Amino acid sequence: MNELKIFSPATVANVSCAFDILGFAVEKAGDRMTFRKTAEKGIRIVMKNYRELPTEPEKNVAGVVALAMVEKRQPGFGILIEMEKGILPGSGMGSSGASAGGAAFGVNKLLDEPFGKTELVQFAMLGEALASGVAHADNVAPNLFGGFTLVRSTRPLDVIPLHTPERLSVSLIHPLIEVKTKNARNILKKSLLLKDAVIQWGNVAGLVSGLFMEDFDLIARSMHDGIVEPVRSLLIPMFDELKQAALDAGALGCSISGSGPSVFALSADLATAGEVTEAMRKIYAETDVPFETYTSGINKKGIRILNEIND
Amino acid sequence: MNELKIFSPATVANVSCAFDILGFAVEKAGDRMTFRKTAEKGIRIVMKNYRELPTEPEKNVAGVVALAMVEKRQPGFGILIEMEKGILPGSGMGSSGASAGGAAFGVNKLLDEPFGKTELVQFAMLGEALASGVAHADNVAPNLFGGFTLVRSTRPLDVIPLHTPERLSVSLIHPLIEVKTKNARNILKKSLLLKDAVIQWGNVAGLVSGLFMEDFDLIARSMHDGIVEPVRSLLIPMFDELKQAALDAGALGCSISGSGPSVFALSADLATAGEVTEAMRKIYAETDVPFETYTSGINKKGIRILNEIND
Repeated sequence: MNELKIFSPATVANVSCAFDILGFAVEKAGDRMTFRKTAEKGIRIVMKNYRELPTEPEKNVAGVVALAMVEKRQPGFGILIEMEKGILPGSGMGSSGASAGGAAFGVNKLLDEPFGKTELVQFAMLGEALASGVAHADNVAPNLFGGFTLVRSTRPLDVIPLHTPERLSVSLIHPLIEVKTKNARNILKKSLLLKDAVIQWGNVAGLVSGLFMEDFDLIARSMHDGIVEPVRSLLIPMFDELKQAALDAGALGCSISGSGPSVFALSADLATAGEVTEAMRKIYAETDVPFETYTSGINKKGIRILNEIND
Repeated sequence: MNELKIFSPATVANVSCAFDILGFAVEKAGDRMTFRKTAEKGIRIVMKNYRELPTEPEKNVAGVVALAMVEKRQPGFGILIEMEKGILPGSGMGSSGASAGGAAFGVNKLLDEPFGKTELVQFAMLGEALASGVAHADNVAPNLFGGFTLVRSTRPLDVIPLHTPERLSVSLIHPLIEVKTKNARNILKKSLLLKDAVIQWGNVAGLVSGLFMEDFDLIARSMHDGIVEPVRSLLIPMFDELKQAALDAGALGCSISGSGPSVFALSADLATAGEVTEAMRKIYAETDVPFETYTSGINKKGIRILNEIND
């Protein structure tokens, strides 16, 4: 393969109670990336939008991933990566994860696929480490695997694709303010009470069971985060109102996407998700915070190939 | 129905990482209980063994459950409960849970089943409160429902029967020393680090997923408890040696049953579970601690009716 164009999906990590271990991929939001073999060795990055992002490979989220893969395989060619971001950096919708996961996927294809999916997650985590200082996997794993993806453990990495109910859909609202992942991490309390942890892992077990059993009521009963959401939601304008409006409109649950500021809600079907998005939109329409919204199915396949040229 | 004889199974609660939320029922260990309508109103308890246990209904684990149910329904008859315990009190194998769950099940039958299963769990929790001071549900729920049973939440009570892989089997060793549930609770640390809680709920999610997916490797990778087991295992002679022997013999995982002192191990099939039991037996054979062992399938049905007399 000489050239490849892909769609690399946005992802929601920190799914309510399942902080740091569970994420899912979004069907209708993501980046487009093109990978092309070049005679000149090395990695070259071209930003088709967001031109303020660094293009030196060692400072670029996709670049560090590509560099590590090429370093390992030493191919006889170079790689040009063109990036057209559809997810705004700092949105909490897995923007760096889409670049990092996309780079891992695309470079692997040009190298004739020497690496398995879990290895690609590991390479992609280098991009996350550059972006946020923490090599987390809960965006890049669903980005590459699709659907709901459990990261049982980061060291050693253990990624488990879960069952994703067919009709489950998502609403997203992205307030156009910036919350840095680093800052969102720093405001978290370092410890918690055992009794609160037990409530949280009861909900984690309920949420995972609800996905396997396609029990939407159970998913709804389990989507409570008593530990991270109460703290991080302070950084998001009108969070409580957004959440209440989403639940009133029929959402199963609503919480912070990643480390924010985006807020997501899950619904039992796409029509309800549309109404939930509209309810959240109305809350923000009365503020002076600019925002964008999405209504989407869950992406079950991960990264999608748009075009490949083999000659 | 005038008379009913049942087998009320032993249960393993606190399944490794899933402290306070997950239990399962054991096929081959349990109590036998007989329930008989009497002309004289009120509850009467007869202990066929363990005659040192109190038989005044308000001081007896089965008695308080029966009293609460009769109080609610005011039947025109009394109930005699004969108990023959097969599970030693203080074993950590759900002895009080078997009495309490059994009483809820049996009395409900004599009352013509006015209560649903989750209501029975709620009544049975009164027995647990009497026995240990805490109205926990993670023994009585699997005792009544069978299989692996999640207690997502205690207040409000939310009980979810999970999928139980067919061949999964259990080994148990019960050191004949007493560990009071109250004491086992008191030695626990009241708080923990968020990073350790995240590791724990990653494993909880992995264990639950492993049950649904029948993925024994995943169950094995997930059976790690970094929070409760390191503290409570100090109360159990030779715990580390037992666990190592169980894993060396092929167990998927090994941890404390309930609040101890019993230790359980899960294996992929009954033959392996037999070898695991034998490996644990050898460790204790070299000590002067008396003990008993069990090898069993997972009980998937909960309480079993042995005999009923309707005339």
